[in-house]
Amino acid sequence: MSVTAAAGFRAAGVAAGLKASGGPDVALVVNDGPAFSAAGVFTTNRVQAAPVLWSRQVVAGGRLAAVVLNSGGANACTGPAGFADTHATAEHLAARLGDAACSGAGEVAVCSTGLIGEPLDLPRLLAGVDAAAGSLSGDGADDAAAAILTTDSVRKQATVQAGGFTVGGMAKGAGMLAPGLATMLVVLTTDAAADPAACDRALRVAAARTFARVDSDGCLSTNDTVLLMASGASGVTPEPERFDAAVEEVCARLARALVADAEGAEHDIAVHVVDAASVDDALEVGRAVARSNLLKCAIFGRDPNWGRVLAAVGTTSAAFEPDALDVSINGVKVCIAAAPGEPRDGVDLSGRQVDITVCLHAGDHDVTVWTNDLTTAYVHENSAYST
Amino acid sequence: MSVTAAAGFRAAGVAAGLKASGGPDVALVVNDGPAFSAAGVFTTNRVQAAPVLWSRQVVAGGRLAAVVLNSGGANACTGPAGFADTHATAEHLAARLGDAACSGAGEVAVCSTGLIGEPLDLPRLLAGVDAAAGSLSGDGADDAAAAILTTDSVRKQATVQAGGFTVGGMAKGAGMLAPGLATMLVVLTTDAAADPAACDRALRVAAARTFARVDSDGCLSTNDTVLLMASGASGVTPEPERFDAAVEEVCARLARALVADAEGAEHDIAVHVVDAASVDDALEVGRAVARSNLLKCAIFGRDPNWGRVLAAVGTTSAAFEPDALDVSINGVKVCIAAAPGEPRDGVDLSGRQVDITVCLHAGDHDVTVWTNDLTTAYVHENSAYST
Repeated sequence: MSVTAAAGFRAAGVAAGLKASGGPDVALVVNDGPAFSAAGVFTTNRVQAAPVLWSRQVVAGGRLAAVVLNSGGANACTGPAGFADTHATAEHLAARLGDAACSGAGEVAVCSTGLIGEPLDLPRLLAGVDAAAGSLSGDGADDAAAAILTTDSVRKQATVQAGGFTVGGMAKGAGMLAPGLATMLVVLTTDAAADPAACDRALRVAAARTFARVDSDGCLSTNDTVLLMASGASGVTPEPERFDAAVEEVCARLARALVADAEGAEHDIAVHVVDAASVDDALEVGRAVARSNLLKCAIFGRDPNWGRVLAAVGTTSAAFEPDALDVSINGVKVCIAAAPGEPRDGVDLSGRQVDITVCLHAGDHDVTVWTNDLTTAYVHENSAYST
Repeated sequence: MSVTAAAGFRAAGVAAGLKASGGPDVALVVNDGPAFSAAGVFTTNRVQAAPVLWSRQVVAGGRLAAVVLNSGGANACTGPAGFADTHATAEHLAARLGDAACSGAGEVAVCSTGLIGEPLDLPRLLAGVDAAAGSLSGDGADDAAAAILTTDSVRKQATVQAGGFTVGGMAKGAGMLAPGLATMLVVLTTDAAADPAACDRALRVAAARTFARVDSDGCLSTNDTVLLMASGASGVTPEPERFDAAVEEVCARLARALVADAEGAEHDIAVHVVDAASVDDALEVGRAVARSNLLKCAIFGRDPNWGRVLAAVGTTSAAFEPDALDVSINGVKVCIAAAPGEPRDGVDLSGRQVDITVCLHAGDHDVTVWTNDLTTAYVHENSAYST
């Protein structure tokens, strides 16, 4: 159910012909109120797609009536014409929903995903918006979650029930997954009564601790968008801690689903950085390890090559003594004090999940960053994506 | 001839049994004087191999009589025992050369390359040093250049004759190639009369402009070492500009050879960043593009996916207007003002070299960073390296 699990939301997903495959490619999520609070976080890439430029402005007002999402084209690096297309899409949906439901394009967020640098087929997209609007329903979450996928192999949805209110969400993302933030489209809905400031606080913290700690391939997208809409339809105004926790739990489940479906990956790698002097230090080390192509190739080859972990740690400015570093892989302490520890032959890398723990001996802060192995299938998929 | 092209140098390369393949794995380069000036630059990785810790101290004195190099093991992350092995190797060679040629271990640099985290077989290494010392000759450059290779497929050597003096050099490096500096072992020799300060100045500038602008796979090694030794045997004291230019020319040729032999690569990619506000800005942009796995996969697939170039440029803090970026690939201006330009179908990516030009429209500084495509062969090679 995901985005329609919370009371007050309808969704739809249809095939509009934007994808060459003919699969579903236009999704809507509509908030029927009574409240229309919203918040968003967006890519930190300075090259931003038209829908990101648009939606950032719209969300700044703290109010959203609907989100329209398309796969089959990112509408990024498309110039002023691309921005006009995004604007026209929002106008079109606002008009279709009518004044009672939506006061105008300024309450409609737009998200796009697909190839960068190609204009969208606007007539097809608008026809798709009409078709989707005609099929909006309280059971439309699965269709919407399917329509936003690109190279993803499965729908990614999560729902949390908490003390009288619900938070649900859907995500897409299988490549260009890197922090700052986490490189995907995500729509979260809740029927909690939460004002825009509460939505913003919950979303920022949750995104920073979940999506921003996924670094599948080190490549930061032009289109990352995470939106949260609150309808208030449950009539429950949760305690801030409870609301924040529920939002973070949904984000954490979706982030984990992104890693599990990363392009061509055979392993999900959790890089646990422990005993760091600060969270920032731990994050810097975790990301450096997560971005080592050599380490990621080694894990693909089921080779517990801890030297490549240390080589990555050594490129950071985090506080640590180079001679004091310990590394464990799947529980085997293969490196003690930056020298060989237990035999690497004892490490079993046959499972999907790999846990790499780097101990900095510099403090008491711990962070986990998620990444994937670098496989021949990743290279195949990304050498043939646009052609 | 490379390291023995300059007067005053002998070299050798032998098989000592450190490599499982049985190939040559111990090299010597000896300076017979009359002068013994030297300089070195080393990895900026904070996790540094024992030979790097040793050679950095030795070179600080500005004087070197010899360098001993081994492949078949990096002697990195090997703890105090690894450092003792490096020290013993230098002592052994100093004793073998005798007091007349070398006053002690403090005039012997050591370089190692191979797997991180495994101790060297010291008895074999010392026997190899003896054998190499017994076969030192003025024709030994080719043997030495062969003995330092690991996954390299060819010897990398270069020689420049300039106004009465000669500069020659040899290099190894095919993976873990990334800036700061450029991740390899390099020994340069010259018969110019150049004091240690002149050697240091020439080497630092040359390394920064050549090796430090290669970023094959984004992975910074624990063992990078570039050494320059000057014998003065030509009797010529060159003008500084002339000396610096000759050293840089040899470094540039060796850097280009490293790119051409990068693991599994099918394309050498020159990322030209032009009209930047500063050299640092241009370097930051060039490295971001050079590290985009998605772009590197696209080039492997002969796909001129300029959207991935802009997505990488957008992650930097360089001065530019995101809407003003232009990108050309092999002469075709596929992106103008951050929007589609000439048809991408016109780009021919069948050749080995690919030229990507990013125009920032922010100043008048230009830099070229070299990288390679990301191929299935790279993944294969690096998933099976240590096993």
